[in-house]
Amino acid sequence: MRVEDVDTPALILELAPFERNLNRMAAFASKAGMRLRPHAKMHKTPAVARRQVDRGAVGVCCQKTSEAEVLVDAGIEDVLVSNQVVGMAKLKRLAVLAQRATIGLCVDDASNARAVSAAAVAAGSLIHAYVEINAGADRCGVAPGAAALALAVVVASLPNLRFMGLQAYHGGAQHLRSDAEREAAIAAAIDRARTSRDLIRAAGIDCPVITGAGTGTYELEAASGVYNELQPGSYAFMDADYGRNQASTPYEHSLFVLTSVMSRSPEHAVVDCGLKAHSVDSGMPLVAGDAGGRPMPGVGYVKASDEHGVITSSGGDLPALGSKVRLIPGHIDPTVNLHDWIVGVRDGMVAELWPVTARGAMW
Amino acid sequence: MRVEDVDTPALILELAPFERNLNRMAAFASKAGMRLRPHAKMHKTPAVARRQVDRGAVGVCCQKTSEAEVLVDAGIEDVLVSNQVVGMAKLKRLAVLAQRATIGLCVDDASNARAVSAAAVAAGSLIHAYVEINAGADRCGVAPGAAALALAVVVASLPNLRFMGLQAYHGGAQHLRSDAEREAAIAAAIDRARTSRDLIRAAGIDCPVITGAGTGTYELEAASGVYNELQPGSYAFMDADYGRNQASTPYEHSLFVLTSVMSRSPEHAVVDCGLKAHSVDSGMPLVAGDAGGRPMPGVGYVKASDEHGVITSSGGDLPALGSKVRLIPGHIDPTVNLHDWIVGVRDGMVAELWPVTARGAMW
Repeated sequence: MRVEDVDTPALILELAPFERNLNRMAAFASKAGMRLRPHAKMHKTPAVARRQVDRGAVGVCCQKTSEAEVLVDAGIEDVLVSNQVVGMAKLKRLAVLAQRATIGLCVDDASNARAVSAAAVAAGSLIHAYVEINAGADRCGVAPGAAALALAVVVASLPNLRFMGLQAYHGGAQHLRSDAEREAAIAAAIDRARTSRDLIRAAGIDCPVITGAGTGTYELEAASGVYNELQPGSYAFMDADYGRNQASTPYEHSLFVLTSVMSRSPEHAVVDCGLKAHSVDSGMPLVAGDAGGRPMPGVGYVKASDEHGVITSSGGDLPALGSKVRLIPGHIDPTVNLHDWIVGVRDGMVAELWPVTARGAMW
Repeated sequence: MRVEDVDTPALILELAPFERNLNRMAAFASKAGMRLRPHAKMHKTPAVARRQVDRGAVGVCCQKTSEAEVLVDAGIEDVLVSNQVVGMAKLKRLAVLAQRATIGLCVDDASNARAVSAAAVAAGSLIHAYVEINAGADRCGVAPGAAALALAVVVASLPNLRFMGLQAYHGGAQHLRSDAEREAAIAAAIDRARTSRDLIRAAGIDCPVITGAGTGTYELEAASGVYNELQPGSYAFMDADYGRNQASTPYEHSLFVLTSVMSRSPEHAVVDCGLKAHSVDSGMPLVAGDAGGRPMPGVGYVKASDEHGVITSSGGDLPALGSKVRLIPGHIDPTVNLHDWIVGVRDGMVAELWPVTARGAMW
């Protein structure tokens, strides 16, 4: 099938730039001597995770127990839930999953660490535990330094947990607009991670992995001499927000929302793709071009409602009724999560159809 | 199971206020002599549509062909796709669906009307066609007056289409903040609908149904003497945006996102519910209370990221690690669309579990 004939709205993945993105990050990590653990919360798609692992990733991360279940079921053997998991219902599931795969999670509370241990003991499994420090985003994580050490001591003492090191991801830094802002934020995160690691080592506790870093900052963490594992996610698909972030990024937009013009007036085109087909939390999508990818200069997506988008033009031709348009999503993660399928295309033809198996996996 | 034991994030529907909302709107429509056709794009859930029809609704509306398929499969016998349907792939499916249910759709273009007719002819079915006029939102719809008449003439002449009347829904008016603004917007919409209807009738074409109106304005359309069918959706569940809209609304918040505290600091609680569990396009959700619904004064949800929400307090107690919180979504439609299940509760106990069968149905 030609890409022009795919019904809309649909997620279209251009396989050539997607593969270039995967290869580029894998080559970077290899050259830098870093472990690469791409974030699967972005794509929620086992077929993508498999291609990342095939290129040398040590495994993937995700944010939810149910995502980890999907990934392990699909054959991914090493999954880090880079998040706290709270409540015995989820912990039991995670501990059972650890019977058949290498499973990690993050802790930032001693009582939670004890609950994780109890679940692992009950399941007879081993869970890899990372102490999450507040790397600067002021969201989850213990304070760096003494509090991180205290929690590492608890984790290292608990049965059926293996203390693996520190989670030190600074989410907010990924989307700062200037190089200087990102450098300052990550310099502080590196300092927090180093201080915590050195205290833990000084207490005689091995602290082998310092993990974190996203698409916006991974080169900084890689150059730190402190981090040894990277967790970028968006680099595989990219989005409008990351595009604005880094004019010089080597990563290419590979994922698009294909949409059709369903109504036309002289002033605007209405497309069949609104808030239920892409997320506007980081701004409107960009018009990438027509169905085949040919640019449409001057044409922009200016307004989203539940099932509609309004496209206007500042000079270029508006698309005709029934024609199709490619959009670059404003924010990739919550956009992919709205779709059940990714349509992979190569040379204008549909080549792959991948289920977004962990779509909606939020437990 | 007690509601406190439902794992999170989850959609919790309080059945008592939900049923009061359904009863209240049904009683209003009955008393006003209006046909009620609730909008199923909001809930995407056949169990809800069934309860609306059981209370006297003539059928439901939806926005997508795939939603109509789900609803008809679930036994709803009269479905209006209150939207344009463009492209022969979708039109064939809709025409086949019309072999076994009463199916309507909206048109705002003569070439599209001819395509709808051709699909219905090929399927040997009859499709109810409504001419959509631009009621003031400047999105879809032909201009009122002469353009509406011209399109009605085309529709009335086409085989296997039955011209049913006018779709005159003003989406933007629903969310205007003051009564006066909404009254002015709907007065203009009524005028546009009346003018168009009168022209069509003067041309000798029957124009039996004038349909439109949402939760924010339906009383105005009902009092117009022009509209005879109402399409409200949000009234069944409500949301924070509609709550801000109308301080005096008789409709109650019945749907909540249940979320758990997964991390605590002295200054904030982080809950397990972010952009993938509720939509922030109309602002942040409100904290409705604890798992049982007891209010938590001074506590607010201030920031959402993909899988996290940050809750702070201006005086009240922050919820403890592992405890659960009920949120009122900022915008109900795209929030429900993120979930696969609605958990119906009554008197603190889980009483119903309804699949959101049309979740993600966007084709």
